[in-house]
Amino acid sequence: MDESSPTPAPDGRTAHERPGVYATPGAGFERDTRYLTTRITADGRDGWPVEAGRYRLVVSRACPWASRAIVVRRVLGLEDALSMGVCGPTHDERSWTFDLDRGGVDPVLGVERLRDAYLVRDPRYARGITVPAIVDVPTGAVVTNDFAQITLDLSTQWTTHHRPGAPDLYPEALRGEIDELGDEIYRDVNNGVYRCGFAGSQETYDRAFTRLFDALDRLEARLTRRRYLVGDTITEADVRLFTTLVRFDAVYHGHFKCNRHRLTEMPALWAYARDLFQTPGFGDTVDFVDIKRHYYEVHRDINPSGIVPRGPELRGWRTPHGREALGGRPFGDGTPPGPVRDGERVPAGHGAG
Amino acid sequence: MDESSPTPAPDGRTAHERPGVYATPGAGFERDTRYLTTRITADGRDGWPVEAGRYRLVVSRACPWASRAIVVRRVLGLEDALSMGVCGPTHDERSWTFDLDRGGVDPVLGVERLRDAYLVRDPRYARGITVPAIVDVPTGAVVTNDFAQITLDLSTQWTTHHRPGAPDLYPEALRGEIDELGDEIYRDVNNGVYRCGFAGSQETYDRAFTRLFDALDRLEARLTRRRYLVGDTITEADVRLFTTLVRFDAVYHGHFKCNRHRLTEMPALWAYARDLFQTPGFGDTVDFVDIKRHYYEVHRDINPSGIVPRGPELRGWRTPHGREALGGRPFGDGTPPGPVRDGERVPAGHGAG
Repeated sequence: MDESSPTPAPDGRTAHERPGVYATPGAGFERDTRYLTTRITADGRDGWPVEAGRYRLVVSRACPWASRAIVVRRVLGLEDALSMGVCGPTHDERSWTFDLDRGGVDPVLGVERLRDAYLVRDPRYARGITVPAIVDVPTGAVVTNDFAQITLDLSTQWTTHHRPGAPDLYPEALRGEIDELGDEIYRDVNNGVYRCGFAGSQETYDRAFTRLFDALDRLEARLTRRRYLVGDTITEADVRLFTTLVRFDAVYHGHFKCNRHRLTEMPALWAYARDLFQTPGFGDTVDFVDIKRHYYEVHRDINPSGIVPRGPELRGWRTPHGREALGGRPFGDGTPPGPVRDGERVPAGHGAG
Repeated sequence: MDESSPTPAPDGRTAHERPGVYATPGAGFERDTRYLTTRITADGRDGWPVEAGRYRLVVSRACPWASRAIVVRRVLGLEDALSMGVCGPTHDERSWTFDLDRGGVDPVLGVERLRDAYLVRDPRYARGITVPAIVDVPTGAVVTNDFAQITLDLSTQWTTHHRPGAPDLYPEALRGEIDELGDEIYRDVNNGVYRCGFAGSQETYDRAFTRLFDALDRLEARLTRRRYLVGDTITEADVRLFTTLVRFDAVYHGHFKCNRHRLTEMPALWAYARDLFQTPGFGDTVDFVDIKRHYYEVHRDINPSGIVPRGPELRGWRTPHGREALGGRPFGDGTPPGPVRDGERVPAGHGAG
C-alpha cells in the first residue's frame, strides 16, 4: 500500500492530506500498515487459488510500491496469466482512478475508481485505497493490497505460469538474507524518504535524514564490491531498492528534502541503479512523467502550488555503467524477458530520454 | 531590495507572503522595483555626501541582494568608513530584525526593527522593508535601498575611503560590458530563480526555468574560455553572479525547483564559483545556515512545514578549482583584502565545512 500515492480514507482525504493523523507537528510520519492480507496461493488456502486469467493487478506507474509488482510481473513473464490495470498518476479525493483508460473506465473491471473494488470486498472498508491491489475479476473484489507479500507470491505461488527462462527472484537459500536486507531497506530507504518528506518537525526530519543517508552509505559500500545486493543475480532485494533509487533525484531529493547528495553523486549506487535500469524489466517500466506528476501534484501539503519541476535531466540513466566488471549474471541460469507487450509500454517521452 | 528575503508591506506581510500581489495564479512573479533611489555620492548632490563614519549598511547574510554589498564593502576595504549592521535570517511579520544583536537592538541605530529606519525616512512608507539599506546614522533615516546602485556607488563614490590595493570592480572602460551582462544576469539568473520559485502557474514556471538554464548554458560556455566574466579581473559582474551561484544547490535547486542540473553538474560554472568562493572577500562572507534558514523558514507559501533540509554536503566548495590555468589576476594591480574583521566573521559552523 502507499500513502504517498495515497490512500483516501473514510473522510475522503488521503493519508498525506490528513497531517493530523499521519504527520502531527512534532511527530514522525507513520505509515498505515493495515492491509488486506488474504493471499492468492497455489493451494488456495485463503479461498483465492492461483488461476490464469482470473485476477487483475491494479497499479499506478507513479507509485514505488506498485512499481515493485510491475517489475516482478514482467521479469517473471506473468502478463498472460495476470492482467494489469493502470491508474493515472493523480487521483480525486476518493480514489485512484482509471483516467488513462478510454472513457475513464478500466476495460476489465468496468469501474472508474479503484475504490469500487475495495467496497465490493468490504462495503464498510475505511482504510487506504492503495496500489498495488489484486482484484478477483469474477467478483470485482480486491483480494489483497499487501504490497510486500504480493511480489513474493508472484515469485513463489505463480511458478506454473512463469515464462520459460524466468529467474528465481526469491531463491530459497537466500531468503534469510533477502528478508533481512529488505527490512532494512524498507525501514530506512523505501519508507525512509517518506519519513523525511512528511516529518512533522525539524527533529523528526533530521533523524529520518540521518537514517536514510546512513543506510545509503552502507548500501554504497556493499555495492562497491558486488554487482547485486544478494547472491550474484537480481533478486527481490534489488527490485525493492530500485524503485526508490529510480525516484530519488526526480522527486525525493527536492520534494522530500533528501538532499545530502543526489543519487548521481553516490558512484556505486548510481552505477547499480543504471545497471538495473538498463536491464529488461526494470527501466522499461518506469514513467518519469507519471512519477513527477503524482508527487508534486498530489502532495499539496508540501507543494501547495502543484507545479511540477522540469528537472532533472534524465539522459544519464542511459549511460554506460561498467558494472559487468563485477561479474554476476542478472538472470542467473535464465534469460531476460522479451520486449514490453503492446498496450503496456510506457508512453513515448515518459522514459529517460 | 529583496522580496525574497522580504519586504514586509503595508499590510504587514512580506511580498512573498502576499501571493495575491506578486504571484497570482496564472501569472508570473513580479518583483517590486520601487526603491528609495536617493544616492550617497562624493559630491552630495542628493543631500547625502560620502562621509566616513556617518552611514550604516544594514544587511542580512541570507539575502543575495544584500550579499553583493557585503562582498563589495569587504573587497574595497570600506569597513572603517561604513559600518555594517547584520539582521537575522528570518524576521517577524513587519520587518527584518536585529535579533542577532545583544538585546535584539542594533548597537549603532538603537532600533530592533529595520522598519523603524524606513519610517524615519517616510512616516507613510508603504513599500518593502528590504536589505541592503544604507541608513544615515545621525538622523536614523534610510537613505537608499537601491541594491543595484549601492554597490556601484561603493565602487565609484567612496574611492577616497577604499583600502590601499583595493581593486577597481567597475572599471570605466568595461562598464558597458559589465552593465549589459549585469542586466542579463539580473533578469534571467538573479531574479530568474525567484521567477521559478514563485511562479503562479506551470506555464510561467516552465518559461522561467527555460530562461534560467538557457542563461546558465551561455554563462557556462563563456566561463569555459575565460576566468572571469569581464576583463581578466574580478568585477561587479562576478559579484552579481556569485551571490546566486553560491545559493544554487543549497536553496534554489530544491526550494525554487531550479533542478535541471545542480551547480556541481555544470563544470565551468562550478569551478568558477569555487574560485570566487576561495577568493578573500567572497566565500568568507557566506553564511549557509542563515541562507537556508531564511528561504525555508520564511517562505511558508512554498514550504509550509518550515523544515530546513540538512543537505547538501558543502565541503566541495573548498576543493581545488584549477581556474588559475585560464590566467587572470583576481585583484588586477591591487591586492586581496586582509582577514575578516573581528565582529564580522561568519559564525563557526555556518560556512562550507
